[in-house]
Amino acid sequence: MKKIAIDMMGSDNGPLVLLDACKSYLKDHEDVSFLLFGDEKILKEATSGIDRIEVRGTESIIPMEIKPLDFLRSKDSSMYQALAAVKSKEADAVVSAGSTGGFLTGATILLRNIPGVLRAGLCSPFPTKVKGKGTVILDVGANNYNTAEEVYQYAIMGRIYAKSVLGMEDPGTWVLSNGTEEGKGTDEVVGAYKLMKENASLNFKGNVEARNVLDGTHDVVVTPGYAGNIFLKSSEGMASMMNEMIKASFKRNLLTKIGYLFSSKGFKEMKTIMDYRRFGGAILLGINGVVVKAHGNSNEYAFYNAISVADTMIEKNIIDQIQQEFNHD
Amino acid sequence: MKKIAIDMMGSDNGPLVLLDACKSYLKDHEDVSFLLFGDEKILKEATSGIDRIEVRGTESIIPMEIKPLDFLRSKDSSMYQALAAVKSKEADAVVSAGSTGGFLTGATILLRNIPGVLRAGLCSPFPTKVKGKGTVILDVGANNYNTAEEVYQYAIMGRIYAKSVLGMEDPGTWVLSNGTEEGKGTDEVVGAYKLMKENASLNFKGNVEARNVLDGTHDVVVTPGYAGNIFLKSSEGMASMMNEMIKASFKRNLLTKIGYLFSSKGFKEMKTIMDYRRFGGAILLGINGVVVKAHGNSNEYAFYNAISVADTMIEKNIIDQIQQEFNHD
Repeated sequence: MKKIAIDMMGSDNGPLVLLDACKSYLKDHEDVSFLLFGDEKILKEATSGIDRIEVRGTESIIPMEIKPLDFLRSKDSSMYQALAAVKSKEADAVVSAGSTGGFLTGATILLRNIPGVLRAGLCSPFPTKVKGKGTVILDVGANNYNTAEEVYQYAIMGRIYAKSVLGMEDPGTWVLSNGTEEGKGTDEVVGAYKLMKENASLNFKGNVEARNVLDGTHDVVVTPGYAGNIFLKSSEGMASMMNEMIKASFKRNLLTKIGYLFSSKGFKEMKTIMDYRRFGGAILLGINGVVVKAHGNSNEYAFYNAISVADTMIEKNIIDQIQQEFNHD
Repeated sequence: MKKIAIDMMGSDNGPLVLLDACKSYLKDHEDVSFLLFGDEKILKEATSGIDRIEVRGTESIIPMEIKPLDFLRSKDSSMYQALAAVKSKEADAVVSAGSTGGFLTGATILLRNIPGVLRAGLCSPFPTKVKGKGTVILDVGANNYNTAEEVYQYAIMGRIYAKSVLGMEDPGTWVLSNGTEEGKGTDEVVGAYKLMKENASLNFKGNVEARNVLDGTHDVVVTPGYAGNIFLKSSEGMASMMNEMIKASFKRNLLTKIGYLFSSKGFKEMKTIMDYRRFGGAILLGINGVVVKAHGNSNEYAFYNAISVADTMIEKNIIDQIQQEFNHD
């Protein structure tokens, strides 16, 4: 029986939406149980009589912005306790839709890096224009600065993730840069290029420019965290801007509304392809534990998928795989 | 009579498309003349009998990638000669659709920075989701590294550009970062925040995250060049991906094609709003001269607009304005 700790508090939509996801997941998976951390009264009431769910009452919620010392003082929070359950090996994984900063800080402090890993990186799968084909990108913002060697390590970890969770056979790796030629980019990018090129097992393909990352031909793309965060949010921003414009285009007048009736099937498929919720969230790779960060505004579908990512990561022994890779070096 | 030097070579679509833009521009503007650099035979033949166009034959074309020393050795190239015409004050501005790297290198070497300007920055106006409202962003990739003070200077220059060319009255300025709170981002970003905050004339508003830059409420956004380049290309990449998907959605079957007939008006407006060619290209700000880089794949419309940007920059004495601002300091 796999046990997954869930931080039920701090999401935009409240604990009951997350709970619905947990309940659905239990129905579909007989080998999973949950340890829920959060408001005892709400959660006990809502879960009474359900098997494979245990509730642990907690007193506080980690705010959106928190300093490391303040996190350490927030032992009574749902997030702290959920992470601590992984540390004590009571749970095999932890999922949270709460504060990203708090979760990254807490995971790093409580669970620590896998020996040999210099810096954990936040790994986010992206939808691409090719239906069903994802791209794995890291670091998308756990760090402001990364050395060349850290970026190189992201390629090793990103490949393990792409193979195990996304089922890619021999994923190619790329470095995000501002030009495709070797030597383009910052020192860290140029350095990572050199290190990756020397490691034949990485299936290294070279630099990729930001405009081509999501064309469906790139499996794993690594980058220092600051640029990765700009990439993530620029892409999100443009996608949401265009989605709004598409809606406005159809809502313009009666004719355009009729147009929508005819063409809606095509646009629904587009929406499905672009739906980041399919991927369930981001994963902090390099930490001693399965640590999944769901979007703050996750609905049931998105949170279900975040749980599924955690489940798959346990199933495939991702942490062991990373440990072996780094002990081997 | 304003005289604009044009590098006619090295664009994706060949010199005749650029020439069409020049001819249209001459028709619409009686106070402009052109100095065209490129293939003498083609250009002389195509311009015979046209007033206010002078052709200067050149022998070579600057390749996409070129080192500074090689640029200096390419004196017989159209790009070198077009830049040299500004240096010698024979022309008031230069426009090129050729190699971006070559053009930035050449402009910096031949024309040099305005005294007091630490680093020139590539400034690109972006369309936003609000019709007719642009956002000015710099540096979008002239530099891999920028100090806090350089980023601060971009705000000064970006404001002059936004006021003079885009007609904004008192443009607000923002720093691109990975969070809105003061203190978020790399050291250069945090440093630029502090410097901008201290200068009341900048109408400084704080940090902006990449996902909100194009929401139509941000006038001037400054950033170190590497992150700016990732922003530019991520946004372009997502926009082109979604445009392809919109097309595919409408082309799916007969019904969706009928849907397009009804809703096409709305989508044409969206296309107009998103059309970056309206802005004509990017401007290297901080250089002793009006230096406009048109997109490599500019069509007549885009190149016409690039010329128009150069014309407006001459008209508004942007270089003098920047010089005064920096001498004043």
